[in-house]
Amino acid sequence: MSQWNEGRLWIAGQWLDGRGETLASFNPYTGESIWQGAAASVEQVELAVAAAREAFPSWRRLNLENRQEIVECFGRLVTEHSEALAEVIAEETGKPLWETRTEVSAMAGKVAVSLRAYHERAGSTRRDIAGGQAVLRHRPLGVMAVFGPYNFPGHLPNGHIIPALLAGNTVVFKPSELTPKVAERVMRLWQLAGLPDGVINLVQGARQVGEALAASRGIDGLLFTGSAHTGHLLHRQFAGQPGKMLALEMGGNNPLVVSEFCGELDATVYTIIQSAFLSAGQRCTCARRLYLPRGEVGDALLERLVAVASQLRVGGPFDHPAPFMGPQISDQAADAIVRTQSDLENLGGKTLLRSTRGQGAVVTPGIIDVSAIATLPDEEYFGPLLQVARYRNLADAVAMANDTRYGLSAGLISTDDGEWQYFVEHIRAGIVNRNRPLTGASGDAPFGGPGASGNLRPSAYYAADYCAYPMATLEGGQAELPDKLAPGIVF
Amino acid sequence: MSQWNEGRLWIAGQWLDGRGETLASFNPYTGESIWQGAAASVEQVELAVAAAREAFPSWRRLNLENRQEIVECFGRLVTEHSEALAEVIAEETGKPLWETRTEVSAMAGKVAVSLRAYHERAGSTRRDIAGGQAVLRHRPLGVMAVFGPYNFPGHLPNGHIIPALLAGNTVVFKPSELTPKVAERVMRLWQLAGLPDGVINLVQGARQVGEALAASRGIDGLLFTGSAHTGHLLHRQFAGQPGKMLALEMGGNNPLVVSEFCGELDATVYTIIQSAFLSAGQRCTCARRLYLPRGEVGDALLERLVAVASQLRVGGPFDHPAPFMGPQISDQAADAIVRTQSDLENLGGKTLLRSTRGQGAVVTPGIIDVSAIATLPDEEYFGPLLQVARYRNLADAVAMANDTRYGLSAGLISTDDGEWQYFVEHIRAGIVNRNRPLTGASGDAPFGGPGASGNLRPSAYYAADYCAYPMATLEGGQAELPDKLAPGIVF
Repeated sequence: MSQWNEGRLWIAGQWLDGRGETLASFNPYTGESIWQGAAASVEQVELAVAAAREAFPSWRRLNLENRQEIVECFGRLVTEHSEALAEVIAEETGKPLWETRTEVSAMAGKVAVSLRAYHERAGSTRRDIAGGQAVLRHRPLGVMAVFGPYNFPGHLPNGHIIPALLAGNTVVFKPSELTPKVAERVMRLWQLAGLPDGVINLVQGARQVGEALAASRGIDGLLFTGSAHTGHLLHRQFAGQPGKMLALEMGGNNPLVVSEFCGELDATVYTIIQSAFLSAGQRCTCARRLYLPRGEVGDALLERLVAVASQLRVGGPFDHPAPFMGPQISDQAADAIVRTQSDLENLGGKTLLRSTRGQGAVVTPGIIDVSAIATLPDEEYFGPLLQVARYRNLADAVAMANDTRYGLSAGLISTDDGEWQYFVEHIRAGIVNRNRPLTGASGDAPFGGPGASGNLRPSAYYAADYCAYPMATLEGGQAELPDKLAPGIVF
Repeated sequence: MSQWNEGRLWIAGQWLDGRGETLASFNPYTGESIWQGAAASVEQVELAVAAAREAFPSWRRLNLENRQEIVECFGRLVTEHSEALAEVIAEETGKPLWETRTEVSAMAGKVAVSLRAYHERAGSTRRDIAGGQAVLRHRPLGVMAVFGPYNFPGHLPNGHIIPALLAGNTVVFKPSELTPKVAERVMRLWQLAGLPDGVINLVQGARQVGEALAASRGIDGLLFTGSAHTGHLLHRQFAGQPGKMLALEMGGNNPLVVSEFCGELDATVYTIIQSAFLSAGQRCTCARRLYLPRGEVGDALLERLVAVASQLRVGGPFDHPAPFMGPQISDQAADAIVRTQSDLENLGGKTLLRSTRGQGAVVTPGIIDVSAIATLPDEEYFGPLLQVARYRNLADAVAMANDTRYGLSAGLISTDDGEWQYFVEHIRAGIVNRNRPLTGASGDAPFGGPGASGNLRPSAYYAADYCAYPMATLEGGQAELPDKLAPGIVF
C-alpha cells in the first residue's frame, strides 16, 4: 500500500515525518537496519496530544457498540495479517517466529477479554430505589499516553490501548525506540479498521519524546509498561497531580522455589527452563532466582538443569530448525548480562553455566550459584541469567523468595498440597504459579504485583479499572417535597 | 467502664497517654471543652505502626469468616450504642442529633455493604484449565494509615477501616484533631468487639502526627479523606514510592443546575437547600454553585430560595425544636466563610442572603449572586455559602458547571429527559444526581470523582479495590513435560 511510506508518525489521521532526532531500528541478530525515520519533535508531541483531545468528545460519545465494532474489526485485521505481523515482531525483537506468533494471537485475543472485563469491572448497572433509580456508569478519563516496552512491542501496548479505547479514551502512543516498526505496522491496522482520525496518535522517539509526552498538560493519564527505573521517575514526575491516572507495570526479581517433592525430574527442569529462559529471559515474569533444596534431589535437579540449558538452541528468529530463544534486544542489553555475570562472580557467585556472547546481540543461557554471596543485589537482570541458591526447609525458601522489594511473579514446583498451601499463604507476589512456568499468566486474570513492581494498578483483566472512573447517580423523576420535611425547614 | 479513662491513644491493645503536645476538643456551639489529652509523640506513632506490623501476619491469615465475625460484632455494638455515639458526634461536631443518628446508622450499615463489595470486587474465583485450575485471590497490602476528617468523624474513617480490616490489613488511625473523642469512642467499641491487639491503633494529633505517620517506613498505604490542600501534599510526599497505596478523597466545587422545567417550585427549593446547607455546608458533596435559568422561573426560584433559606433554623445540636443545621466545626472555619463572603463581594458578588456569625461557631446560610464576577475563584468553600449564577441555555450551564478543576458531585433538577440525557453525557463528576439533593449518595455505589477531587481511587463500594492486590495463580497438580516440547529444547 502506498500510504505505508508516507511518514513515520501518525497524528490526527495523517502520516507525518518526524522532525526530531533521527531514529532507526535493527534486527538484533543480523544487525540489519529495518526501520529508519526521525523521532517526533516536542511540537509534534503536542500536536499529537491536541489531536487526541480533539478526537475525545466524539469518540467517548459514540455508543460502546460503535467503538466495539471498530476494535473488533482491528482484532480481525490482526488475525488476517498475523503472519506478517509476527514476522515484523521477530525481525525487530529477534524473538523466534514461533513465539511471536503467540504474541500476535494474544493481541487478537485481547479484544474479547477486554470486553468481558469492561462489562464486569466498569460497566453499567441500574436498580430501583424509592421514587427513582440508582444508576452506576463509568466514564473515560480523556487522553491516555501509552508507553510501550520492547519485549512485547505488540501485545503489551495493545493491552493498554484496547481497554482505553473501549472505555472511550483517546490515545497518544509512544512505543519503545527499539521497536518503532512494530508500532507503525499495528497503527496501519488501526487505520484500516476505520478508527476515526486522532483517536490513536503515534509518536516515535526515545527518552526526550517520552519526557515531553509525560509532561504534556493535555494528557489525563499515562499507562506505562517498562523498567522500574523509568517507572519510578514517572511516579515522581506525576507528584502533585493526583487527578492524572498513572498505571505503572514494572519489573520483578522473581523467585521460583522447587520442592524436594517436585515430582518428575525432567518435567521440573522443563518448567524451570520455560520460566527462566523463555524470550531469552526478556519477560518481566521470568524467574530470576531459583531456590533448590539442599541434598540429593537438589543436586540431581541442578545437574540436569545445567545439562539441558547448555543444549538449548539459540539463534536467529527465522532459523530452521527453530531456536528456543533468540538474541537480546540490543548489544547494550547483551553486554549488561555478561557484565552482571562478572559482577556476581566478583561478589562470590559460582558460575555453573557461562553466559557468552554469540552472533549479534545473542547471550547464551547462564546459571550462577549465588549461595555464597552475602548480600545479593535485589536487581532485575533482564536476560537469560538464572541465579541459584539452596535452601534448608520451605520456610527458609519462602523467606528468601520474599526478600525483594519487587513482587511480580513467584512459583513453587511441588506435588505436596501442604507445601503449596504454605507457599500461597506466605508468598508476596501478584502472579503465583504452581507446577507451571512463571512465564505463563492467564489473560482473563489481572496482571501486576505489589512492591516496586508497579503502583497497584494491575493491568490485563483489571485494565478496565484504570481506563474509567465511576459515575454514581440517583435519578428521580422529579424533585420532591416530602410529607415530613427535615427538621428546621419551614415552607 | 473503668478502662475508658486509662489513656487517649490505643496502641497494641493498650490505652496510653500521649506524649506529644496537649490536645483538646470543644463543643463548637457552646465552647465547652469535651476532651482533653495529648497528641502522640513521633515515637508513639512509630510504636503504633510497629504494633500494626506485628499484628498483620496473624490477622491476614485468619479466615475471612473470622475477621467478618469480629467486624460484624463491631457493627452490632455500634447499633447497640448508637444513641450514645450519635450524642458524642453531635457534641463534638455541633451537627444536629437527628443528623448524627443517620451517621451512626451508616456506620453500622457499612459492614454488610463492605462484605458484598469485597466478594464482588476483591473475592476469589476458581476455574478449570487444562491440567489444573486458574485461581484468583486477593491479598491485603499490610499496614494502612487512615486519616479521618472532622465532618463525618465516625462514618468516613469507618468507610476505610472496615474494608481494610475485612481484606486482612491492619490499621493506624489518625482522626482529625478536631474530633478526638468520637475516634476514641469508636475504638472502645472495636475493643469490646474483641479485635486482636494491634489490629487497629489510634494515634491522636494534628499536622505533626499526620506527617510522622505518612512518613513512616512501616506503612504500606494511606487512606485519606480531607482537604484538597492536604491531599496534594500527601501526593507529593508519596512521590517515588509507587508500591505504597495512596487513596485520596478530597473536596469539590460542586455545581447544581436547575432547569426551567424543574417541576414544582417548593420541591426544587427544598432540593437546593438540602444540597447546599445540609450539615451546615460541611459535606464534600454539598452544592457550592447554583445555576438558575434567566427569566421568570429563575427569578421565582431565587426569591423563594432566599426566603426559605433565611428561615432555616440554626442552632445547637441538642436544641428543641431541632435545628436544620448547627455551627461550623470551629471559629476559624466560621470566620473563613464570612471572610469569603466579603472577598466575593469585593470581586463583584451581590449578597442576596447574608451569612452572619451566631452563637459559638455558627454561621447562618448565605447566598451570593456571582454572575458579575469575571473570574470566579475555583475554591471549595466548606460551609453554608451558596454561589448563584444565571444561564442562558443548558449547554452554557453545563459548560459553567464543568469549569472547575474538581469533579466530585453535580446535579440537575429537571423533569425533561432530554435535558437529563445531555447533562449526564456532558457533566464531569463522580456523583451525579437528578432531582435529588447532591448530598445523597448510595453506599452501594463507588464514591469519588475525577480532577482535583481525588486520585482516582474511589471509595465506598470500590474501597475493596484499594485494600487488596490481586494474586492470579495457575495451579497444576504436577510439573509437566509435554509430548511436544517447545522448539530448541532437547531432553
